[in-house]
Amino acid sequence: MTNSVGISAQLDFDAWVKLKQAHLEQVLDRVLPSADLIPTTLHSAMRFSILGGGKRVRALLCYAAAEVYIQDTSSTDISLTDNAACALELIHAYSLVHDDMPCMDDDDLRRGKPSCHKQYDDATALLVGDSLQSLAFSAISQTSPSQNAQQQLQMLHILAKAAGSLGMAGGQAIDLSSVGKPLNQTELETMHRLKTGALIEAAVLIGAASAQPEASINNAEILALTRYAANIGLAFQVVDDILDVEGDSSILGKTAGKDANNNKPTYVTLLGLEAAKTYAKQLHDEALSALKPFSTQALRLQQLADFIMHRRF
Amino acid sequence: MTNSVGISAQLDFDAWVKLKQAHLEQVLDRVLPSADLIPTTLHSAMRFSILGGGKRVRALLCYAAAEVYIQDTSSTDISLTDNAACALELIHAYSLVHDDMPCMDDDDLRRGKPSCHKQYDDATALLVGDSLQSLAFSAISQTSPSQNAQQQLQMLHILAKAAGSLGMAGGQAIDLSSVGKPLNQTELETMHRLKTGALIEAAVLIGAASAQPEASINNAEILALTRYAANIGLAFQVVDDILDVEGDSSILGKTAGKDANNNKPTYVTLLGLEAAKTYAKQLHDEALSALKPFSTQALRLQQLADFIMHRRF
Repeated sequence: MTNSVGISAQLDFDAWVKLKQAHLEQVLDRVLPSADLIPTTLHSAMRFSILGGGKRVRALLCYAAAEVYIQDTSSTDISLTDNAACALELIHAYSLVHDDMPCMDDDDLRRGKPSCHKQYDDATALLVGDSLQSLAFSAISQTSPSQNAQQQLQMLHILAKAAGSLGMAGGQAIDLSSVGKPLNQTELETMHRLKTGALIEAAVLIGAASAQPEASINNAEILALTRYAANIGLAFQVVDDILDVEGDSSILGKTAGKDANNNKPTYVTLLGLEAAKTYAKQLHDEALSALKPFSTQALRLQQLADFIMHRRF
Repeated sequence: MTNSVGISAQLDFDAWVKLKQAHLEQVLDRVLPSADLIPTTLHSAMRFSILGGGKRVRALLCYAAAEVYIQDTSSTDISLTDNAACALELIHAYSLVHDDMPCMDDDDLRRGKPSCHKQYDDATALLVGDSLQSLAFSAISQTSPSQNAQQQLQMLHILAKAAGSLGMAGGQAIDLSSVGKPLNQTELETMHRLKTGALIEAAVLIGAASAQPEASINNAEILALTRYAANIGLAFQVVDDILDVEGDSSILGKTAGKDANNNKPTYVTLLGLEAAKTYAKQLHDEALSALKPFSTQALRLQQLADFIMHRRF
């Protein structure tokens, strides 16, 4: 596998993103069962649901957090980071497939393509999500003699907790139960901290851990990374809500105006459009402030905060 | 936690099963988030879907395989076996919740109670299954200083592969696509080896591995345990198909005659009732034969083969 972290420090941000996205695509392609393996429809549908699209924000955060600790990686084995990035995107993709199903958000469009249950059927979409989740844990539990198993187990445990009922799936449950209900800002934030924030936080912490297989990261650094992740996680959601109002479906690759039309509480409906933009900027500033102790080592994390803030899709 | 393996060698089989089932119930109760934790409906539904019922065959197999290697465990920490047994039952329970959903088997009755989507709703059932799967990997990745992380990672990897598209979920996909189609015995077996067999095989191998944290099990033993598991896995399914015809819904705790009514291929429709019974006996004999190298250490595995063969529910 090409080690793409080593040469990346010299690249501008856009080139780094493209390089990482292309690299991850290769890793995912290798980890996913071939489409001609039985059951072929399930494997085709799994590949359809994750390959060839997506911003890969969680994987980018994972790589960026790893680069805080691995500056010169030309001689470093980054397979642990690759497996972690891959697992994060598998969990994210499974959640999108299930969220789009008729009994959940009932969305026909995803990443500019039909959603999985539209392209295939509901039963296949259910099994695709289930299988992508299993594959995430299979990918991140791959062992190699050079790896520190204790560290790897901790990464895996962070991922499992972030995905479950006290994380992403729990946030989705709160989201579903909140349709049509007036939520205050604290309740809305609790929902998003679980639904989106938990996996984004996991991405940063697992990425950092993947680059430190032999040593522990000190507590102050974990706190700083967690603070960064919490703020960009919320910023990501606030920007999402703004794009739901201002965005263009053809650029977004999903149906704009969906949340507002579904009577879902959003930062825009709660705060108003301008105040939501101001809030996103505050969160962005907080995230950058959290990175100060890392100085230039956190370049990619800083750039990702900017990217999340200014994205149009 | 009470160490219940140590005293179990003196117990008769029924008492051992009851002890293990009760012990596992405690472990599950501890691992599952409390029903008063937010999101409360999701957590209540998760507990509803796994606590208070079920034969716990996979957990029993896991404990029985551990007892091949731990005969006198009065001073042994069996938390690794507990976590593995718990994870196996969490994966099994998630698969039942999803299988019962309207887009899959559409079954209203499970373990004598309403199935999860009937008691709650489809969206909750979807998230319950998703969350139980995450929780399985969270449970089995719990670390303690006394454990061998490398061995634990291998156990986890076996579980993830057994659950995914090349195991249980893949078998379910083949099952769904085979409704109304004539399958030959090889195709039917491929389906069941994935759908039921993969997790049963994982239960035996993970259970054995959980009791051998410091040393490797030799290849001949792994092959013998795999052969045992493959045969009882198929026997389990053949007996299931026989019970679908001969069983009583009130004892089964699920709808008898469901598979036949749904025009699903079964061993009974393929072979006829008497030949299916003969085949179950052959598989049972094969399973016992595989255990010969272990002599009396494999007592519980032998008894479980008998239990699977002669069960009425």
